[in-house]
Amino acid sequence: MNEIQQLTVNAVRVLSSEAIDKANSGHPGLPLGCATIGYTLFTQLKHNPKNSRFFDRDRFILSAGHGSMLLYSLLHIFGYKVGMEDIKNFRQAGSVTPGHPEYGVTDGVEVSTGPLGQGIANAVGFAVAESMLAERFNKPDCKIIDHYTYALCGDGCMQEGIEAEAASIAGTWKLGKLIVIYDKNNITIEGSTDIAFTEDVGARHEAQGWQVIRVNDGEDMDGLIAAIAEAKKETEKPSLIIVRTRIGHGSAKEGSEECHGSPLGAELTEKMKKDLGYDYPPFTVPQEVYDDVAKMQVRFSSYEEKWNKLKRSYARKYPQDNKLLDAFISNDFTKALKDESLWENAPKPEATRNSSGAVLNRMAALVPNLVGGAADLAPSTKTYMKGLGDYYACSRGGRNVHFGIREHAMSAICNGMYLHGGLRPYCSTFFVFSDYMKNGMRMSAIMNIPVIYVLTHDSIGVGEDGPTHEPVEQLAGLRAMPNLNVFRPADRRETVAAYISALSGKTPTCIVCSRQNLPQLDGSGKDALKGGYVVYGDEKPQLILMASGSEVGLAIDAAKKLQEEGKRVRVVSMPCMELFDAQSRRYKSKVLPSSVTKRIAIEAGVDMPWYKYVGLKGKVIGINTFGESGKADVLMAKYGFTVDNVLTKAKELLK
Amino acid sequence: MNEIQQLTVNAVRVLSSEAIDKANSGHPGLPLGCATIGYTLFTQLKHNPKNSRFFDRDRFILSAGHGSMLLYSLLHIFGYKVGMEDIKNFRQAGSVTPGHPEYGVTDGVEVSTGPLGQGIANAVGFAVAESMLAERFNKPDCKIIDHYTYALCGDGCMQEGIEAEAASIAGTWKLGKLIVIYDKNNITIEGSTDIAFTEDVGARHEAQGWQVIRVNDGEDMDGLIAAIAEAKKETEKPSLIIVRTRIGHGSAKEGSEECHGSPLGAELTEKMKKDLGYDYPPFTVPQEVYDDVAKMQVRFSSYEEKWNKLKRSYARKYPQDNKLLDAFISNDFTKALKDESLWENAPKPEATRNSSGAVLNRMAALVPNLVGGAADLAPSTKTYMKGLGDYYACSRGGRNVHFGIREHAMSAICNGMYLHGGLRPYCSTFFVFSDYMKNGMRMSAIMNIPVIYVLTHDSIGVGEDGPTHEPVEQLAGLRAMPNLNVFRPADRRETVAAYISALSGKTPTCIVCSRQNLPQLDGSGKDALKGGYVVYGDEKPQLILMASGSEVGLAIDAAKKLQEEGKRVRVVSMPCMELFDAQSRRYKSKVLPSSVTKRIAIEAGVDMPWYKYVGLKGKVIGINTFGESGKADVLMAKYGFTVDNVLTKAKELLK
Repeated sequence: MNEIQQLTVNAVRVLSSEAIDKANSGHPGLPLGCATIGYTLFTQLKHNPKNSRFFDRDRFILSAGHGSMLLYSLLHIFGYKVGMEDIKNFRQAGSVTPGHPEYGVTDGVEVSTGPLGQGIANAVGFAVAESMLAERFNKPDCKIIDHYTYALCGDGCMQEGIEAEAASIAGTWKLGKLIVIYDKNNITIEGSTDIAFTEDVGARHEAQGWQVIRVNDGEDMDGLIAAIAEAKKETEKPSLIIVRTRIGHGSAKEGSEECHGSPLGAELTEKMKKDLGYDYPPFTVPQEVYDDVAKMQVRFSSYEEKWNKLKRSYARKYPQDNKLLDAFISNDFTKALKDESLWENAPKPEATRNSSGAVLNRMAALVPNLVGGAADLAPSTKTYMKGLGDYYACSRGGRNVHFGIREHAMSAICNGMYLHGGLRPYCSTFFVFSDYMKNGMRMSAIMNIPVIYVLTHDSIGVGEDGPTHEPVEQLAGLRAMPNLNVFRPADRRETVAAYISALSGKTPTCIVCSRQNLPQLDGSGKDALKGGYVVYGDEKPQLILMASGSEVGLAIDAAKKLQEEGKRVRVVSMPCMELFDAQSRRYKSKVLPSSVTKRIAIEAGVDMPWYKYVGLKGKVIGINTFGESGKADVLMAKYGFTVDNVLTKAKELLK
Repeated sequence: MNEIQQLTVNAVRVLSSEAIDKANSGHPGLPLGCATIGYTLFTQLKHNPKNSRFFDRDRFILSAGHGSMLLYSLLHIFGYKVGMEDIKNFRQAGSVTPGHPEYGVTDGVEVSTGPLGQGIANAVGFAVAESMLAERFNKPDCKIIDHYTYALCGDGCMQEGIEAEAASIAGTWKLGKLIVIYDKNNITIEGSTDIAFTEDVGARHEAQGWQVIRVNDGEDMDGLIAAIAEAKKETEKPSLIIVRTRIGHGSAKEGSEECHGSPLGAELTEKMKKDLGYDYPPFTVPQEVYDDVAKMQVRFSSYEEKWNKLKRSYARKYPQDNKLLDAFISNDFTKALKDESLWENAPKPEATRNSSGAVLNRMAALVPNLVGGAADLAPSTKTYMKGLGDYYACSRGGRNVHFGIREHAMSAICNGMYLHGGLRPYCSTFFVFSDYMKNGMRMSAIMNIPVIYVLTHDSIGVGEDGPTHEPVEQLAGLRAMPNLNVFRPADRRETVAAYISALSGKTPTCIVCSRQNLPQLDGSGKDALKGGYVVYGDEKPQLILMASGSEVGLAIDAAKKLQEEGKRVRVVSMPCMELFDAQSRRYKSKVLPSSVTKRIAIEAGVDMPWYKYVGLKGKVIGINTFGESGKADVLMAKYGFTVDNVLTKAKELLK
């Protein structure tokens, strides 16, 4: 490392520590320990700090998101739109420098990270997207998509199961352009990793199909550069670069867990500055550091210029491909969804998982960048797009992805695939196993990115597989999540609405489907896009039945019986509460007039989500226990999902 | 394999397939492929089919729970309380032979399995419990606790992240008495494992500190017996026995994913019987098979007799230890919790995570079999029991467990530790990361076992760490889960109630704690055990404010202001909705009189859980978006958790 390089690395350390001290909150351990790694990487990246959205840039993901100040210091010094005032506002409400990196908030941040392990799985998604787009668009004379994906992670990420899942599938997929740097400092919050983590991480990754490279000293810039070069040379395997570092490097707390998540404090930061010979006022980066980076900017700008030139040449030679690539990148195929013929119901009763399969296959033709698959359940969740090939290491153009039995990584990989740009990913598993990927789904929701979750085998309708496979509380749990639309369609038309909403909207969407056949409803239609609507019944009801999914047909049957007995009944289908809640007050009170206080909600799940619609005077026919193993129709009857039971409850209410 | 052994193995195959055909539902692939493995294991186990609760038995966990018919066939043939009628009722409502094995339903089933990977982590928990109890109670002349834990898993389990977590910590803990048999048939639902799973599972486990043994043919009984012996010889490492099998062995669908989860059907089962030379009517096990097992039963009974003798000798020589061991096994220390001195509040405002730390340490003294720890967060979640040692491979008597950053495995390990018997486990992480272990928690709830989850860093009160670390929807999500008590205490006394409830009850309990300081309430007390109670205010209120945790103090402050303005206000503290809902109708209407329809709930989380208490005419002051990074008090004010905002809302309502 030469003098200016060392000075820059020290600037990263000092700036990070000063910001954390000022906030009196944050994690200095990683920024200090990885300052040289981070700096080296930022000099090596194909990126353009003056345009963080340059499409063919290398992606960098800070999987160890608690080390956010490392990233912010680097973004600042390298000329991204992170000013010194922003650094001073680290971790303050409304700042662009929040506690953990947040996508959409900070220039140069590719993805929100913090929950450990997620970032590595995101990185796998970025690398998959790169390989898919490269296969689809590159020409022998024009590699229009050609970049690396880097991630930096710590001992924490390496212990999480999601990392093992992601590493395993990355090895299977031979993602040669994925490079993960492992900041191995052997310290976590409870102390030495020896107390809970003695595995040989390198050997484990080798077993999972990775190239493993070791750098014995995190301050060895030449060693790091050589390691990156070696990683790039290996095109058939993802690379793990294990770098031995010292947490809190340069500070008095170097090597101790005490500096993981607590500020050093003014005194120790001062001491560190002295020890480093860094004699500048607080929040000062020496001008020579800025100047040195400005020199690099020439190279950074040339990356994009070169690519822009390549893109113009591509446009000339391959106008059709170029147009499609642009469409992929702008990622808006909503016009194609206007096709009226989509809105037909199935000719006979159909499980909504089959409706979903049919609609997905229609959508695959309309939305050419729709890619995805299941966690080894495509034959059951009906999420295979016929005739569109499989994404394998040997056939990266296939659109069907086989994630393996790795739900958590699957969701995070989809997040990465979307964030890369150019693709619209979906993924699928049994609804109950959304539990396994809950935090990945949460990350979709926090980032507000429209990943699609197809979740089949809904409710006790699953039947014989029993309580471990019967979701009862998952509807409530996912509806409780902000920014997430949870669709539970009642028939094929409502399934169309779910897909159109999912493919048009900006938020992630769950499409929750039944295993069992459901009747096709006369009254269903485009109003399903409003989340809730009158699907059957009276203009001036004395009783409102509301339901979603498999229980809408039951509600209509019960309503007909009640009408025969002279009652005025309306049935509201509520496929998506979030969309209904977002309608105008006028629309909502038209569907659910406040004058009608006699209301019954029917749903084969816990009752919690419905009280806001039925109130204290209404009733919910739900399931507040776990289910059991048995024939689906037997269970449905046993748990009260019968016309008779609805009639009984209705009559109690109307008394 | 001799003739009678082969006949028994075939009986397992045929019985399994016949039961699955009759149910027209189930998974024949594993029972057929693993019949020899299962039979061999059942001959080798130290167990007593005549008393499935024999305490020092070897434990066997079918991690691949979809292969339930293998287990039921073996339980039936080996003389557990699973009759032929039960086999015929496979997968029917109310039977003891549900679709996946269920704890508490079927004699001989140690744990509910089905969600993949869970069972291996459970097995780690069983092995940990064995090692802890052995360390605590064994004497040089008397190994009163001394058994093995076996698990059988398939390719599915091996792909799940929870398995990698469990394997990693099992290696660190050097669990030499854990033996996992891996049914490697290279087939999953989407086809060959090659498409999504090419890692070298053996090498991966070696990297994680395991001994790996290979058996090339799943029909090689001698090879299996030798492998088990080799596994037992290795006392410093857990053992993985990789057995090459063929899914659906013996059937026409052998080797194909088609037999994973679909019945063979009568025709193919008939063909299989012919091919196997198994000429018996449906649901018939040849008498010579029963007779052969009956001969083994002499040995099985002797295991328990020998242990009973050992126990008597132990009781004579070590009466104190024996008494304690019996108390551990009966696992009821509720008497000790009557100590009145527990119910003191803290002398000054205190974060409930600190309250929890204080109470946990009191409880540790009263409940000697309380063991547990955190996912590398004990210093933050305050879950270290001082002076009680650490559980390490070299010190198995320690009561503090370091799970590493492996939330999902942690919860499943705790399930296993409890189910082993003799211990009361707790585990801990940040509340938001309950997402990572949701399915493990669900398994606690399905099995209704009182594992304790200490979940700190509640709500936007987390502050600077930002939205990825701020739980807003987790309260709703966990409250939606059946059989789970979710406590959100408001001060130290309510934290005492949470622990007493958790340690007395039969269900799992979450104790959700704040990071920030909370006032100690004058009105809190034992009524918190009722889940909801009047903590402050008027006998005849015109307005009810209800809240939990950090918002109760705010509600009281607002109530005082309103009282100053002449309003009659009551504050209801609701630390645990599940317990409140379970109270008598009379009690509930005393706390929340139906005549008072003006109600406001205040909770720094999504509003969904509160509508059933406030109704359509009430209001909820909640957070229906994700939080953000900033100082906790700034965020609390920004999101409306101020006296002023409560007053505004109250006045709107009282207008």
